Amino acid sequence: MDYPNDQAPGAPVRSGIPEHGRIPKYYAVKARLDRLVEELGEGGPLPTERELSERYEVARETVRQAIRELVLEGRLRRQGRGTVVAGPKLEQPLSLASYTEGVRRQGRTPGRSLVTLDRFPCPDALAAETGLRRGEPVWHLERVLLADDERVGLESTYVAVARVPRLDSDFDPDSSFYAWLKSQDIGFGDADERIETVLATPREALLIGTPPALPMLLIHRVSRDTEGQPLERVRALYRGDRFSFTTRLHG
Amino acid sequence: MDYPNDQAPGAPVRSGIPEHGRIPKYYAVKARLDRLVEELGEGGPLPTERELSERYEVARETVRQAIRELVLEGRLRRQGRGTVVAGPKLEQPLSLASYTEGVRRQGRTPGRSLVTLDRFPCPDALAAETGLRRGEPVWHLERVLLADDERVGLESTYVAVARVPRLDSDFDPDSSFYAWLKSQDIGFGDADERIETVLATPREALLIGTPPALPMLLIHRVSRDTEGQPLERVRALYRGDRFSFTTRLHG
Repeated sequence: MDYPNDQAPGAPVRSGIPEHGRIPKYYAVKARLDRLVEELGEGGPLPTERELSERYEVARETVRQAIRELVLEGRLRRQGRGTVVAGPKLEQPLSLASYTEGVRRQGRTPGRSLVTLDRFPCPDALAAETGLRRGEPVWHLERVLLADDERVGLESTYVAVARVPRLDSDFDPDSSFYAWLKSQDIGFGDADERIETVLATPREALLIGTPPALPMLLIHRVSRDTEGQPLERVRALYRGDRFSFTTRLHG
Repeated sequence: MDYPNDQAPGAPVRSGIPEHGRIPKYYAVKARLDRLVEELGEGGPLPTERELSERYEVARETVRQAIRELVLEGRLRRQGRGTVVAGPKLEQPLSLASYTEGVRRQGRTPGRSLVTLDRFPCPDALAAETGLRRGEPVWHLERVLLADDERVGLESTYVAVARVPRLDSDFDPDSSFYAWLKSQDIGFGDADERIETVLATPREALLIGTPPALPMLLIHRVSRDTEGQPLERVRALYRGDRFSFTTRLHG
């Protein structure tokens, strides 16, 4: 039995070494970098590609591929011209609590920055999903999500104009939409969520400031108020290298 | 206002066209292919790269990059030498129901194929996470998950030997572990889950039969029985191009 006893249960089994066939060279480098990352600790600067290619006696392109994957996975992050060890992913609860509360709970400062606020007649697809009437005016509020001034996600909220007619004048787009709804005596009943992984589009990558084609976590939400009436449709995109989502299940 | 009224609310806003800067050429091709995929419908064969590069008047490498992303996202899939339109992602509920039930509910046939069954002393990390005693014997059961004979995931389960001493002799690894636990009068109380996106390791890609570095959805689960005693630790990896997860939230 070759199962190592110090294997962390959340880690890939046997460091991902294929049982048939050879270990790709870049992956062997990635495994060594992974241990180096542990030693360096959060914020620690990674040696240059050149130093690493000499140390591991491999081509710079091989080192580059290993680093690229560790960046996509959120183990490393770019900082200025260099690369440093990234902090742990933010753990956001899957709940009807807002983004704001989730980020605060982890001792980070949440923020938002307005991209778009416009209104248009409810299209068929949105009507079918939410139960809003086709053609009735809806708001579309699009905001970049921030944690400690770092851009970490992009959120689109669709809500009926009839529900919050003064959204454009009364709501501060830098603040929590859910807290504002509450102040308007609008309460959440329940919501259906779906979570998947997608690649960032060029526009999204630009808005969030990520490398293009970074894997993202996409959460679709359709929520209803305490009377079961349609409330909002949300499309929230989170950096896959910076976020994980948690939930508690009951038997 | 240039918001298109037929915009689907689950789709990226404005087809991902950057507001500042030019549309990358491959992305313009990807947007056209996306419409072609809609027209072709599930199982429809995509024209060859050569035909597409002539039709769109771009280099074959540009077409290739667009197709590669659509494959990673699960809009297209490779079939033999060609590429066809993929079916929708499987929607798996985040619940203490088993993989088996989730797949059956969607009219697909679940299956599993045994990779590893071994036992070893509980390492520190597993003890800390689950409440098992360090050094006590634990089983590690690793299986490839199938849907209609298609390999879609890889699941590692860690459970105390004291809890299920005859796992190696009495349990059929092609069947549902949860159904078997139930037959042993072991019931689930609750579980903590965490979901994130990671890249497949070379070993995982080989076992699941995916392209290397495909974005995967990784679910960590730590579950307890009805008495609150540690039950199992699961690391379940699902193809990001084939799965999404759903949940219902309450206010």
